[in-house]
Amino acid sequence: MEQLIGKTKWAIAEGYIPPYSNGPAPEFTSHEAACILNTSDKDAYVEIMIYFSDKEPVGPYKMTVEARRTKHIRFNNLDDPQPIPVGTDYSSVITSDVPIVVQHTRLDSRQAKNALITTIAYTE
Amino acid sequence: MEQLIGKTKWAIAEGYIPPYSNGPAPEFTSHEAACILNTSDKDAYVEIMIYFSDKEPVGPYKMTVEARRTKHIRFNNLDDPQPIPVGTDYSSVITSDVPIVVQHTRLDSRQAKNALITTIAYTE
Amino acid sequence: MEQLIGKTKWAIAEGYIPPYSNGPAPEFTSHEAACILNTSDKDAYVEIMIYFSDKEPVGPYKMTVEARRTKHIRFNNLDDPQPIPVGTDYSSVITSDVPIVVQHTRLDSRQAKNALITTIAYTE
Amino acid sequence: MEQLIGKTKWAIAEGYIPPYSNGPAPEFTSHEAACILNTSDKDAYVEIMIYFSDKEPVGPYKMTVEARRTKHIRFNNLDDPQPIPVGTDYSSVITSDVPIVVQHTRLDSRQAKNALITTIAYTE
Repeated sequence: MEQLIGKTKWAIAEGYIPPYSNGPAPEFTSHEAACILNTSDKDAYVEIMIYFSDKEPVGPYKMTVEARRTKHIRFNNLDDPQPIPVGTDYSSVITSDVPIVVQHTRLDSRQAKNALITTIAYTE
Repeated sequence: MEQLIGKTKWAIAEGYIPPYSNGPAPEFTSHEAACILNTSDKDAYVEIMIYFSDKEPVGPYKMTVEARRTKHIRFNNLDDPQPIPVGTDYSSVITSDVPIVVQHTRLDSRQAKNALITTIAYTE
Repeated sequence: MEQLIGKTKWAIAEGYIPPYSNGPAPEFTSHEAACILNTSDKDAYVEIMIYFSDKEPVGPYKMTVEARRTKHIRFNNLDDPQPIPVGTDYSSVITSDVPIVVQHTRLDSRQAKNALITTIAYTE
Repeated sequence: MEQLIGKTKWAIAEGYIPPYSNGPAPEFTSHEAACILNTSDKDAYVEIMIYFSDKEPVGPYKMTVEARRTKHIRFNNLDDPQPIPVGTDYSSVITSDVPIVVQHTRLDSRQAKNALITTIAYTE
């Protein structure tokens, strides 16, 4: 049974990949993630554009979130067309051809005890 | 006096039960929770579907949130039809027959000092 | 110049006042707060109802947020009609006669290093 | 390709600049930020009003977020018409002449291990 929920355009205004980490990798590697849920019965073709404070946007980064699946995408791992620099402010816009739900998370392990943040991304 | 507020369909895109803990149980046991508020004068019949990155969704997990009550549901404790594996990315969709409000929380006590996150879940 | 923004009915599904604290009071006292912004030119008469998992709701707790003011209300300090028990799951519904904006925050200092959470409350 | 997303009026009800810090500056300086994303092809003229618990609002603080850029604005750094006092409860309303997306973040490094919070700001 398809439980359709979501929207096709999302934004995360806060973005920052901490430049270093404490604790065992990859579990405690500092990272920033977009958790994407696709409850539909169709694969979602997802594109991410990255915005910076001092240069033109980069992207789209393209990926597929399969039907009835979730994908926790680490911004650290994006590399096509180019990696996102660490220690740099950025924002992201995520678009999809089918409805998805997007949640933003960061694990910051620069200090010995990790800090975690999350929020549902912005949609309209 | 009934103060009706909420919606009948919610999603939490981020899900991850930390596989271990520090500190006294159950207070500091790493856990992930969906806090569900039912302000209506009818019991809410709630169903949760769990989505994974690499297999078909599991559920529904069924529960009742009584009229004019709140229930803080720990995903760790769900076991019918089957427990949710720890250390695994998942997402959830929560549906109800009466309006409810859902908020997502995680206590991560893998390191000596606990980390906490929260966000109102997504609805539309 | 009045900058009207907000709604008159809000909900916070997650509620839990940590039962103990570390660090100097009141700055590091574990607490849970509803931050209420009233941008209007009229005083806001605000009422909070508290919902529990195992008993009938308690309230309303009544307060005023003056015109063009913000008020950070600590649930710990509410005492009329009765204090909210610590270490107990609860939820809250906040209503106002003029539009307000509500944000939920908790400082948990049960362990030596404090944990902080925040989310804009739910409105519709 | 312009990917327009956002609204022109936002509010952050929670505001508090921690009065002291631990760790190397400016990276671990306690701060509160509004991350503003402008995906449009026009520069955004942004104004921030600050609301207090015991005095009239202060502002507007004026700034520009250029076309297709993000700006992570630290409330600590605002000084015209006047700095925002530290250790004081406040709220903010952010308006723009073109659609923007606003996310609230605080790094609290008063204790040796930093705490982080974030939420998408309120819009309507």
